[in-house]
Amino acid sequence: MAKESTKKAVVLMSGGLDSTTVVGLLLQRGFKVFPLSINYGQRHKAELESMKAIVKYYQDAKTSIEDVMELNLTDIAKIGGSALTDQKIAVPENKEIGKDIPITYVPGRNTIFLALALAYAEVKDCKVVGIGVNNLDYSGYPDCRPDYIQAMIGVAKLSSKRAVEGRPILIEAPLISMDKKTIIEVGMKCNPKVPYHLTWSCYNPKHKLTGGYEPCGKCDSCVLRAKGFREAGHLDMALKEEKSQAPTSTQA
Amino acid sequence: MAKESTKKAVVLMSGGLDSTTVVGLLLQRGFKVFPLSINYGQRHKAELESMKAIVKYYQDAKTSIEDVMELNLTDIAKIGGSALTDQKIAVPENKEIGKDIPITYVPGRNTIFLALALAYAEVKDCKVVGIGVNNLDYSGYPDCRPDYIQAMIGVAKLSSKRAVEGRPILIEAPLISMDKKTIIEVGMKCNPKVPYHLTWSCYNPKHKLTGGYEPCGKCDSCVLRAKGFREAGHLDMALKEEKSQAPTSTQA
Repeated sequence: MAKESTKKAVVLMSGGLDSTTVVGLLLQRGFKVFPLSINYGQRHKAELESMKAIVKYYQDAKTSIEDVMELNLTDIAKIGGSALTDQKIAVPENKEIGKDIPITYVPGRNTIFLALALAYAEVKDCKVVGIGVNNLDYSGYPDCRPDYIQAMIGVAKLSSKRAVEGRPILIEAPLISMDKKTIIEVGMKCNPKVPYHLTWSCYNPKHKLTGGYEPCGKCDSCVLRAKGFREAGHLDMALKEEKSQAPTSTQA
Repeated sequence: MAKESTKKAVVLMSGGLDSTTVVGLLLQRGFKVFPLSINYGQRHKAELESMKAIVKYYQDAKTSIEDVMELNLTDIAKIGGSALTDQKIAVPENKEIGKDIPITYVPGRNTIFLALALAYAEVKDCKVVGIGVNNLDYSGYPDCRPDYIQAMIGVAKLSSKRAVEGRPILIEAPLISMDKKTIIEVGMKCNPKVPYHLTWSCYNPKHKLTGGYEPCGKCDSCVLRAKGFREAGHLDMALKEEKSQAPTSTQA
């Protein structure tokens, strides 16, 4: 059995609020973080820009974080079945979160993401794979439920070379029982603070007349984010920054 | 709970002997087969050509098989860690099969493949995902062991929209306890016969002077294939065809 010299973790990163909190929590626990970003043809490419800004923030803060490993796997969108990857399906504006499986659900997404993260963790000899799923806000998604994550933990215990050597990779989903309010509160207490002003949540961004993107404010993800900041009693500085840079265009 | 009108199955297809046998077995059981092929940057691209010929064979035989869904996910190779995806690591010639984890092992491959197959099965509303892993010939691969497959079956039970509806996707690995000899014997008894003459196994193909590829005859996969045909008492018609078309060049 090989010794663990450094605590290392792959974190599935999207540029969103949840995965950035997982990065912050693992850095605080002394892990060296290997961010993994997967472009599977989702619409919200603004996330990718956010993610790079977040990594730079942590690198400037002298924490132990590697450059992001970006996998361009846009052919995954050929599988279809979701508004997030199929341009022909419209992203709906929020009606009732958590009642049914939303059209923004991407079949198999977390299984694909965790599989790739486990592979990357195996090659980088990481002990942990971190993922930002939470079951309270996304109860409609089959692959955000605790029993699903538990099943993937079981796979991780068996699937790698590390597993054969008796040091299996551990999947951690530290946000699984938190709502957005709690996540924001936890992240604000991290040292360094989780840079929520750099995170991106919107499923349906609009091009700004002045360049870049602005969130739609109406999709499930925007609604959950706004509710989280309101309940946590914090201003969403990402929106504030948007507003202070330039007057936003009205929605097309 | 929705009714199952047609029995449908996604099969992970490589163009190799094992996955083609799984296709043959599921077709014989009356399934409509959706072949899924994933190009993850592996060296043996000759497999892709074989796969198309195999699908054509079954379509000509009037069995119920869709055109192959080919996903080009070559960025997966950026994860590294295997001779099959990293051009800088040489594919070794056979020494001792099954003693250690071979360098041809691709970290996380079966987890990534099954995750993608589960997503495709969900979109196509398939009941079954078929995979050609076998534990006897590939005992050195962590992700070919029965307990690993069992863990993935557990994930499939929970991960999809179908699972939420009480009709989870079933992962089937019908070859798990067969060696190559048995697989070939089973495939030869299928109706229609599994077209082994069109399958491709070599990890390390050489360009032929006359165009196309020829198997190296020395890698693990070539050695296992030759042993299987010898023990099953069948000629490997793929090799016969190669030889009859043109004299083969010597290895570079």
